[in-house]
Amino acid sequence: MPARTVSVPVRWGDLDAYGHVNNVAVLGLLEQARVQAFWDPGAPVLPTLAAGTPVQVVVADAHVTYRKAIPYVQAVDIAVTVERIGGASFVIGYEILLEGDVAVKATTTLVLVDVATWRPIRLDEDQRERLTALAPSPMP
Amino acid sequence: MPARTVSVPVRWGDLDAYGHVNNVAVLGLLEQARVQAFWDPGAPVLPTLAAGTPVQVVVADAHVTYRKAIPYVQAVDIAVTVERIGGASFVIGYEILLEGDVAVKATTTLVLVDVATWRPIRLDEDQRERLTALAPSPMP
Amino acid sequence: MPARTVSVPVRWGDLDAYGHVNNVAVLGLLEQARVQAFWDPGAPVLPTLAAGTPVQVVVADAHVTYRKAIPYVQAVDIAVTVERIGGASFVIGYEILLEGDVAVKATTTLVLVDVATWRPIRLDEDQRERLTALAPSPMP
Amino acid sequence: MPARTVSVPVRWGDLDAYGHVNNVAVLGLLEQARVQAFWDPGAPVLPTLAAGTPVQVVVADAHVTYRKAIPYVQAVDIAVTVERIGGASFVIGYEILLEGDVAVKATTTLVLVDVATWRPIRLDEDQRERLTALAPSPMP
Repeated sequence: MPARTVSVPVRWGDLDAYGHVNNVAVLGLLEQARVQAFWDPGAPVLPTLAAGTPVQVVVADAHVTYRKAIPYVQAVDIAVTVERIGGASFVIGYEILLEGDVAVKATTTLVLVDVATWRPIRLDEDQRERLTALAPSPMP
Repeated sequence: MPARTVSVPVRWGDLDAYGHVNNVAVLGLLEQARVQAFWDPGAPVLPTLAAGTPVQVVVADAHVTYRKAIPYVQAVDIAVTVERIGGASFVIGYEILLEGDVAVKATTTLVLVDVATWRPIRLDEDQRERLTALAPSPMP
Repeated sequence: MPARTVSVPVRWGDLDAYGHVNNVAVLGLLEQARVQAFWDPGAPVLPTLAAGTPVQVVVADAHVTYRKAIPYVQAVDIAVTVERIGGASFVIGYEILLEGDVAVKATTTLVLVDVATWRPIRLDEDQRERLTALAPSPMP
Repeated sequence: MPARTVSVPVRWGDLDAYGHVNNVAVLGLLEQARVQAFWDPGAPVLPTLAAGTPVQVVVADAHVTYRKAIPYVQAVDIAVTVERIGGASFVIGYEILLEGDVAVKATTTLVLVDVATWRPIRLDEDQRERLTALAPSPMP
């Protein structure tokens, strides 16, 4: 199965004054899903985020559609896929699942950049292969 | 001038381990720009966010394009416009300005909902008028 | 054993520009430990935090000693005990454990208040008993 | 007057599900007050927080007493003083003022450390002098 589903714990502090998970906090849950899915210490899909590394993975674009309010729950399941792979960038798709429904649907475009020059770095073959393993087939 | 530009203070805590304002924190800055532009206590464009109010304004969609990393600065100027007005919803456009450049460009779709039923509530004439005052002309 | 140890997931977003878990985020981890230890849906020690409930549990005091910087890890174990029980308040003790060391030691004083009047509410016998079950013996 | 009072903007996102500024967010406001009071670009009291600097200022202890709930307001005034100066550390005192009352009273102990070795660095004469200028006299 190409999508990887991770369980991301919700924090009580993610709720806003409306008593639901705040829309900003939702983007934080997606960030956390991405970290858990792509930088699993056991089998990282991408280079580590350790300080001092010359390569950073930065978010160039985020698009989030909020379909259903998320109340306080202990954790949400988030399905993560690679939707597109470009030269120096790739698009991750997310679905936050809540009691069988898709509460949130989102994409983020990530770019590898050189820390010193802040310029994009092409994905190498190894990285493309590991990203492809998380993509639905056939790739769009 | 139809856009309203607000100064939103950046917090040191908005920085992430890369030393830039985190992409999630950027969405928080946009939320804050929206609150400052639309719920100014002196001249609120929309109903107050006070607890106990029967109407909530919820974010249905957010699309953020990150063009330039934002370092630690005391505050950023954010230009806010109303880009589209629907029956029960409207779209806000944002530009975070950094030393003359647009560092971030974004839109959020907001919907008025009834707290009890969580159903959309149509914007009334008064609200449409105040929103239109923040829209570029002619409206798209 | 009187202390309850909970595993609280750390988020990448908890790191600050120094690459360690930010001191403010640490207080958020303690809040989350408290929620997990005291409001476990299966066996809540205290009344639920559901919206509309007439009783709130508010933090009156927090004292945190940071002994060791916490790098990015997937989760930290936090030992939670009830250190003192007063008329309308109680003190929770926390230890964040990191590779066998106590990285953070903290206490928070919590008070039950009436939502309408914001006045303290005495802990009832049932609540005192459940809190005592989490206290080291003999109680100080 | 030895205390420096800074205005720290509150964000709507600082509110929690109770509709008040969350206790964790309060610690964030204090962090921000400290940054504004001590690292004012025009007249920094302490070395800059720029990335790559060999010295970090870390929080070793934080003690916050919450006296009054803070509702959503645009900004709070925070009075900041230096309460004690040690060899490699100093204690900052804070008061969050709300309509004439002290809503929050707090102290944080800060330590200068060497980034490479994570060991304390003694405050130099220049730093002690600038810190003393923010202390009430006579110093305790």
